[in-house]
Amino acid sequence: MICPDADPVLASFIEGLDVDTSHHRMVNQQNKCGYGLQGVCCRLCSNGPCRLSPARPKGVCGADADTIAARNFLRSVAAGSGCYIHVVENAAKQLEKAAKEKAPLKSGAALSRLAEALQITGRDDWEKAEKIAQAVKEDLYRPVDEKMELVEKIGYPARVETWKKLGILPGGAKDEIFNAVVKTSTNLNSDPVNMLMQCLRLGISTGVYGLVLTNLINDILMGEGEIGFDPVGMNVIDPECINIMVTGHQHALFSDLEAYLASDEVRKMAEEAGAKAVKIVGCTCVGQDFQLRKASGCDVFCGHAGNNYTSEAVLATGCIDLVVSEFNCTLPGIEPICDSLQIPQVCIDDVAKKANAEYDPYQYERRREISQNIVSKALASYRIRGTRGQGQDLLKRFSNAFSGLSSARMEPSDLQNALESLIAPQGGRSNPMAQHGHMEAITGVTEVTLKSFLGGNYSALINLIKEGKIKGIAGIVGCSNLRAKGHDVYTVELAKEMIKRDILVLSAGCTCGGLENCGLMSREAAELAGPGLKEVCKALGIPPVLNFGPCLAIGRMELVAGDIARELGVDIPQLPVVISAPQWLEEQALADGAFALALGFTLHLGLPPFVTGSPVILDVLTKQMKDLTGGCLMVDTDVESSAKALEQVIIEKRKGLGL
Amino acid sequence: MICPDADPVLASFIEGLDVDTSHHRMVNQQNKCGYGLQGVCCRLCSNGPCRLSPARPKGVCGADADTIAARNFLRSVAAGSGCYIHVVENAAKQLEKAAKEKAPLKSGAALSRLAEALQITGRDDWEKAEKIAQAVKEDLYRPVDEKMELVEKIGYPARVETWKKLGILPGGAKDEIFNAVVKTSTNLNSDPVNMLMQCLRLGISTGVYGLVLTNLINDILMGEGEIGFDPVGMNVIDPECINIMVTGHQHALFSDLEAYLASDEVRKMAEEAGAKAVKIVGCTCVGQDFQLRKASGCDVFCGHAGNNYTSEAVLATGCIDLVVSEFNCTLPGIEPICDSLQIPQVCIDDVAKKANAEYDPYQYERRREISQNIVSKALASYRIRGTRGQGQDLLKRFSNAFSGLSSARMEPSDLQNALESLIAPQGGRSNPMAQHGHMEAITGVTEVTLKSFLGGNYSALINLIKEGKIKGIAGIVGCSNLRAKGHDVYTVELAKEMIKRDILVLSAGCTCGGLENCGLMSREAAELAGPGLKEVCKALGIPPVLNFGPCLAIGRMELVAGDIARELGVDIPQLPVVISAPQWLEEQALADGAFALALGFTLHLGLPPFVTGSPVILDVLTKQMKDLTGGCLMVDTDVESSAKALEQVIIEKRKGLGL
Repeated sequence: MICPDADPVLASFIEGLDVDTSHHRMVNQQNKCGYGLQGVCCRLCSNGPCRLSPARPKGVCGADADTIAARNFLRSVAAGSGCYIHVVENAAKQLEKAAKEKAPLKSGAALSRLAEALQITGRDDWEKAEKIAQAVKEDLYRPVDEKMELVEKIGYPARVETWKKLGILPGGAKDEIFNAVVKTSTNLNSDPVNMLMQCLRLGISTGVYGLVLTNLINDILMGEGEIGFDPVGMNVIDPECINIMVTGHQHALFSDLEAYLASDEVRKMAEEAGAKAVKIVGCTCVGQDFQLRKASGCDVFCGHAGNNYTSEAVLATGCIDLVVSEFNCTLPGIEPICDSLQIPQVCIDDVAKKANAEYDPYQYERRREISQNIVSKALASYRIRGTRGQGQDLLKRFSNAFSGLSSARMEPSDLQNALESLIAPQGGRSNPMAQHGHMEAITGVTEVTLKSFLGGNYSALINLIKEGKIKGIAGIVGCSNLRAKGHDVYTVELAKEMIKRDILVLSAGCTCGGLENCGLMSREAAELAGPGLKEVCKALGIPPVLNFGPCLAIGRMELVAGDIARELGVDIPQLPVVISAPQWLEEQALADGAFALALGFTLHLGLPPFVTGSPVILDVLTKQMKDLTGGCLMVDTDVESSAKALEQVIIEKRKGLGL
Repeated sequence: MICPDADPVLASFIEGLDVDTSHHRMVNQQNKCGYGLQGVCCRLCSNGPCRLSPARPKGVCGADADTIAARNFLRSVAAGSGCYIHVVENAAKQLEKAAKEKAPLKSGAALSRLAEALQITGRDDWEKAEKIAQAVKEDLYRPVDEKMELVEKIGYPARVETWKKLGILPGGAKDEIFNAVVKTSTNLNSDPVNMLMQCLRLGISTGVYGLVLTNLINDILMGEGEIGFDPVGMNVIDPECINIMVTGHQHALFSDLEAYLASDEVRKMAEEAGAKAVKIVGCTCVGQDFQLRKASGCDVFCGHAGNNYTSEAVLATGCIDLVVSEFNCTLPGIEPICDSLQIPQVCIDDVAKKANAEYDPYQYERRREISQNIVSKALASYRIRGTRGQGQDLLKRFSNAFSGLSSARMEPSDLQNALESLIAPQGGRSNPMAQHGHMEAITGVTEVTLKSFLGGNYSALINLIKEGKIKGIAGIVGCSNLRAKGHDVYTVELAKEMIKRDILVLSAGCTCGGLENCGLMSREAAELAGPGLKEVCKALGIPPVLNFGPCLAIGRMELVAGDIARELGVDIPQLPVVISAPQWLEEQALADGAFALALGFTLHLGLPPFVTGSPVILDVLTKQMKDLTGGCLMVDTDVESSAKALEQVIIEKRKGLGL
């Protein structure tokens, strides 16, 4: 038994597998602890764990529900922020090293834009790049009592003013996290409001550095996006290639691997092994980043197979020869699958070390050595692919997996061919994974390509909003989880509800994985939109749900929102724009959410964070926040009422603008 | 109903109170969650909380018990390390500012010793001090991939070699913590061994910086300890003084307050208010630090009233006029007591902000302003002391509190006088708190004073160990908790068992609070020691349990151990020395423990950390660690069997040395 899934092909495939996946474990773990859900369990000290209830309203130390839930929450937001700060630090390090080596930078235009925004000059692009990297790193390493300098250069000016007034301009990003971790330790801070204000500071540093600057740095290093339409889902996997699955969030760490895979040396090795090529299979957000910048890549990326909770299924196809992981969302659930199918795992960042993975630490200087290690292991693994999963077991697995589908989209003979080609990839042509995914999804949407597509400014879009053809914009972003109605269920249903209401949807993160595979990012999805949005989509040739790629690109949306606000001459909270993370999963998502609240957005979540046991936190996040930043948290586990409420927010914002 | 207490006077006092204290709540919270105790509950992501059991051996993501418990554990160790690193950073900042202002430094000798150890030279003491502070800060702010430089200068050389071989020399202390927090987030690191190795790195940075350097810096700024004997417990509180209770760990933040309280200005203000003086009442570790350096103080410290779980009782006496907190262990439980007795709280460090406290951020430049604020609030509060606790309620409380004791140590007439003096402090003379504590405890023991007391080296002690009069040394250190048999129960019982076995006990931390108040740090406790140790104590005029003061001074013990090892020409794990944190409480204690393991000590805990659900962690900590660092974790909830096992370790180490 598995949890529900918005993607019936995936569900059917997983249901037929004889391996244990997160989709199975979700059912097994469905009974939840009420204390944990409410955030009123504390296990910080040895007098604990303490669990609060009406009969026991305080922990041994005297901490009440507000203190306990706030400590747990701030610590999670801090960890989530830390994840993004780690990513931007590594991106800045890559840029610095590349600049010092005078290595080619893929986008001079992206470099010029960022240098200009940061008021950085230099004799040449490398000097500018080095200075940018150093400015980022300097900010990250400041002590908590020194404000970071780039916030004012990147943040929307009216927002920066609000943050200053509230005293929530962040100090050094890493030290803010350090400080939050100390603050949430035993018998230290007990003031929920103080801790929530620190969440906002962490949200700002997460947003400006992790979500905005990471992308802008990666654009320089890895090239810019270009709007296009690509197939998505497991169908992108070619069984006749040697396939390296990537998971994580750090595109910049793959520049050498990409170049190496495109080299004659590797092409020849692949050929000798009897494969067409060595390809990168995208999974999780780093796959989205590859997809976004496909036009700037070296034609070694075969496409995006799926999001976090698709990764176990991708491995179970038997067509993956090696996994390279460098960050979350790399599920521990892939470990036994890799073990049983003898798929080697190479982890290139210590923070993401999987228990049974080889650790080959990424350093810029060692980049080729690492790429060679990866390719040599992938080749060796490909050679045993025929025996992977012990032959007949694999056949059985696929027969089970696709048996429910054959009538719908696959002939029995195709299945036989597919399975044969899988066992002996040099042989047949057809491909069982072809059943999964969608033949088109819009890709490459960024703050640059979108504006350019619209004619160099947002006036066309603003006019459509003014006319009411587009009622407003909803960012449906973040993760996929399995608890909010099932895998991608809430995300896909909410997106459908929003577009039906003529609300344009932008997505970034694992949400995109589900929305892509379920076809909402294809042009044909215009049919699902309300009359106004449908007309717009058809006229422009775009889908009603636009794909910004990785969760990191939530920062790009903030740039879009800033640009629109600037053109309208208003502040961000006045825009008819709402944000939803319907299936937020990770601590990172909480840090993203803190950024959304600092920006003054109404933020919808499909599941509450673990704070519902605290009256103070609920009051601050859902009510008082309006008077602080203009933002507001809205938690609603029902799709339709959420859609209605979000539409209502948009209508009110329109009214505020006189629309 | 309250939990058991090693200190019957305190227990009786608390039992009679009509306020809720941690001692009451411990009873109320005694039913513990088995998942939490074993560390197999994960609430990192929104698919959770997941709880592991034989029927559900993995979380939704696939994390098993080893991964979940290791993540929880590493995150706690990181937070605990962060606490100490915050403290050493603030101490270094004070030293730097004082040096820049050419302010008086209380100990030139301490400065010279530290400068020499760090190979720092300068034209004058201030330049040396500034360079020391900067060297510490630089190390703390290094990135994780740059090793800190002072470790090799402070660490015992043979240990540093071991750490190098194991690859556990820490990178920048703050970034190690940052890295650990990221690593333990969702779907990142799943390798328990990798995470445990990071615990050791964090242990080393905690130890070298937090536990050693903090003290050495504070010795320069606040003066060195001198061995002496002082009264301890609530009897040190003089109801005729204006009393400021301090809680926390940052002695260096009190240099101005101490000087200001000793000024004629404040003396006059106190006199005008009808009080004898304004005094500092020590509570928690910062109280221990005041006590340790009493000889270097300004005679405004009245003594150490008690440890973390004594603080609520100290407030409930009604004789405290203001609380200054700057770090843990400041229980949230003091908040409602302060509210109901109208005792103002001033918090001078944001990380320790109490929900209902005034926050007056400590900055070196604002130090006098803060001191003035504290004194003015304390004076105003003293003026309403008579009404504190609503008069008759207070009377009733004290009648209850001391009724059980009157036959033992107090005449009914004394009680009446005491209560009258309390309600109208200008009136009577006697003092109900006089019933609590002990009239003598050894104070001021440090790595310097102990060696000097022994004649300038450890040969006398080593000879006593060789002769067997002292079998070995046990560091009984760390916190007090309420769960390991009750308040200070395990600590006091274990110390008695150890000294009975001719094992000299050194203590640092809240353990000292209990051991002092129960008389084990008085010379008369020699009677409780075995024949060899008793003879030594009587000959030297010392108690069998030596008081190193705050938990920070665990680092001083490491220096003592290093000195003894050096004189013996051996490595630390060879010494007949064991460490026990019988009543560890906080995350900080876990970081201390990681240091003990990195040093190669056998470390005993009276309660297991929340890792018992992980076979891998248990195996690494209790077995494999011996082959790594020489250290070993021993968890035993029974006092007598623990004492036997620790004695056995000492006997084996003696054998190893040919004794």
